Amino acid sequence: MKREPTGAAVLQPDKTASITGAVLAELVASGYGRLSMEAVARRAGVGKSALYRRWPGKREMVASALGELSVPSEPAPDTGTLRGDVRALLDGMLAWLTHPQIARILPDVSAEGVREPELAEAMRTAVGTPRRDAARAVLDRAAERGELGISPEIALDLIGAPLYWRLSVRHAAVETGELDELADALTRALRSS
Amino acid sequence: MKREPTGAAVLQPDKTASITGAVLAELVASGYGRLSMEAVARRAGVGKSALYRRWPGKREMVASALGELSVPSEPAPDTGTLRGDVRALLDGMLAWLTHPQIARILPDVSAEGVREPELAEAMRTAVGTPRRDAARAVLDRAAERGELGISPEIALDLIGAPLYWRLSVRHAAVETGELDELADALTRALRSS
Repeated sequence: MKREPTGAAVLQPDKTASITGAVLAELVASGYGRLSMEAVARRAGVGKSALYRRWPGKREMVASALGELSVPSEPAPDTGTLRGDVRALLDGMLAWLTHPQIARILPDVSAEGVREPELAEAMRTAVGTPRRDAARAVLDRAAERGELGISPEIALDLIGAPLYWRLSVRHAAVETGELDELADALTRALRSS
Repeated sequence: MKREPTGAAVLQPDKTASITGAVLAELVASGYGRLSMEAVARRAGVGKSALYRRWPGKREMVASALGELSVPSEPAPDTGTLRGDVRALLDGMLAWLTHPQIARILPDVSAEGVREPELAEAMRTAVGTPRRDAARAVLDRAAERGELGISPEIALDLIGAPLYWRLSVRHAAVETGELDELADALTRALRSS
């Protein structure tokens, strides 16, 4: 049996969760540029040292908090067909992008990543790559069934991009029935011609 | 022959162009949130009244400046095939999104549109709708040839979204050859099954 560490080195999970909540609330209220470690510590009711014990700085703290909201704990959908899996991935994208905190925070942090490449890298590690790896499982299974006719990188962009573009760039709504039509179109795109 | 207006009511095109340049430079340097009319006027070497004669305020001024960089003066590509037109539209997207000023400004202004719906609306009027209307001409011709099997709204999102997602959200590069593979995949998606 693995011995739990004791004493000051232990990071209390409850405290981590309340700090994560404070980070997200501060991001919604102030945006990444104006977010300060002081304000997060104050909102979480902890000392700043509690933040620095967990993360080297603001960007890793933010990326980690967004990872909590972004990386599904369940494995990728496995409906048995490419069409079914793509449709399920779109449901997951829609739920993610319309989460009230994600909808406010993600475009802002993504824009800051243009100015601050280390933030973009931290976001890739905590959010982008884990989400992409989960979706890649769908493509791997499609490839095993001989259904995939396109490079996985382009396929992953095609699945991820349209709802972000619609909701977060164009600030327009997704209408009922459009997810089915989009899933049909993406399935044609992903299959070989 | 139409008489030109005279006196103070005339907006000098040279001055408008130098103000537009100052707006874009300030957006790159400060971002939308910190951009001030004072700083734009100072950089352009004009009085603030020169700005307010042209636009009601900051958001219309910014949207108009971005429109100058974003709305092509040439008509949409007409290569005779859906595949050729889609490929040309992707070239246009890539050139737009990798323009040094657009690459810095667009994600930031798009993120601000989440907080400020009137900015999102001004951007739609000056940038999104004109660009989209130009691409719609491609789809109209495809529909006339019987090649289009998908709603134009979803088709336009599918054409616009993947390069934005790759470059401006994932902050990753577009590799040689990927535009051809993407054009092939999109053509399959846009055609009826």
